Amino acid sequence: MPHIDFPPELPGIRGPMAFRPDTARPLNELVDILLRGPNTLSPGERELIATYVSSRNDCRYCQTIHGAVAAHHLHGDEALVVCVKDDFERAAVSDKLKALLAIAGNTAQGGRYVTAADIALARQHGASDLEIHDTILIAAVFCMCNRYVDGLATWAPDDPEFYRRRAALIAEHGYSALTIQGAAR
Amino acid sequence: MPHIDFPPELPGIRGPMAFRPDTARPLNELVDILLRGPNTLSPGERELIATYVSSRNDCRYCQTIHGAVAAHHLHGDEALVVCVKDDFERAAVSDKLKALLAIAGNTAQGGRYVTAADIALARQHGASDLEIHDTILIAAVFCMCNRYVDGLATWAPDDPEFYRRRAALIAEHGYSALTIQGAAR
Repeated sequence: MPHIDFPPELPGIRGPMAFRPDTARPLNELVDILLRGPNTLSPGERELIATYVSSRNDCRYCQTIHGAVAAHHLHGDEALVVCVKDDFERAAVSDKLKALLAIAGNTAQGGRYVTAADIALARQHGASDLEIHDTILIAAVFCMCNRYVDGLATWAPDDPEFYRRRAALIAEHGYSALTIQGAAR
Repeated sequence: MPHIDFPPELPGIRGPMAFRPDTARPLNELVDILLRGPNTLSPGERELIATYVSSRNDCRYCQTIHGAVAAHHLHGDEALVVCVKDDFERAAVSDKLKALLAIAGNTAQGGRYVTAADIALARQHGASDLEIHDTILIAAVFCMCNRYVDGLATWAPDDPEFYRRRAALIAEHGYSALTIQGAAR
């Protein structure tokens, strides 16, 4: 049961966002820029980073909804999302993304766990400064979102179809737009 | 040495914020609303929560600058800030703030570490839903900022006077305004 009486029909981060729209607005803007803005990393790759970090932080709502958005962007390939969460080194993604996922996982443990060797490996596989920056900030942002969602003990639907439907809406409209409509992700 | 070549004169979060102003803007808006917006928790109390979380996450830049801003709001009482970081149960702060600091520390460990008993204790000492919400979100936001700052291996000045001067500017102008001037906190 959530620690605060949020509207019961809103799972995950949507309850606290409806409760406090003033903070939801910049939070969604930040997520939209990072996950959906112009970038040399594809939306699918960036959602995979968000999903992986949320999985490392054991946040069921975030890893499931962002996993569904990632799969939506990646031609519905839900098996790839599962593989990235389980063991990304074995996943069918680029060496660059593997190096960035390693950086993201270390960021989730704590900023000081990101080593110069992690960064050098990402650069060796072609990662730019901006891609490295955004990977670390995406990981940091999801360390925030995961704690926001679970620190308030919000609930998460069980039905995978719920997340697939919601992911299609997010992919079409974005996080801010859906929140402004009173239906944050 | 920072993992990316930021402007060398900008320590801590100011380097990455100058590098990526698009994400700095909503990030600073979020921090301004949470730490400086209208609230039943004073700016000093909210900065203490930010400082405590940054201390738990061992982020030198964030705990020092926000500790300096907290002290600025609290009549220059730097000893109180040190005491809150060391052992807040012994600090001269309200029982409500102690209960909120406990929630913030647990949020830093991970969202699932916040228990119903933590929330009940805060309510018993008079904390409102909004104060509980904001405490958890402030803690979550600083788990983000700390990872952003340390994940990129930014540098932190040693001179306490640097932080005192900067804190006075932040207290007067806020985080967003200073960033827009090209001199984020």
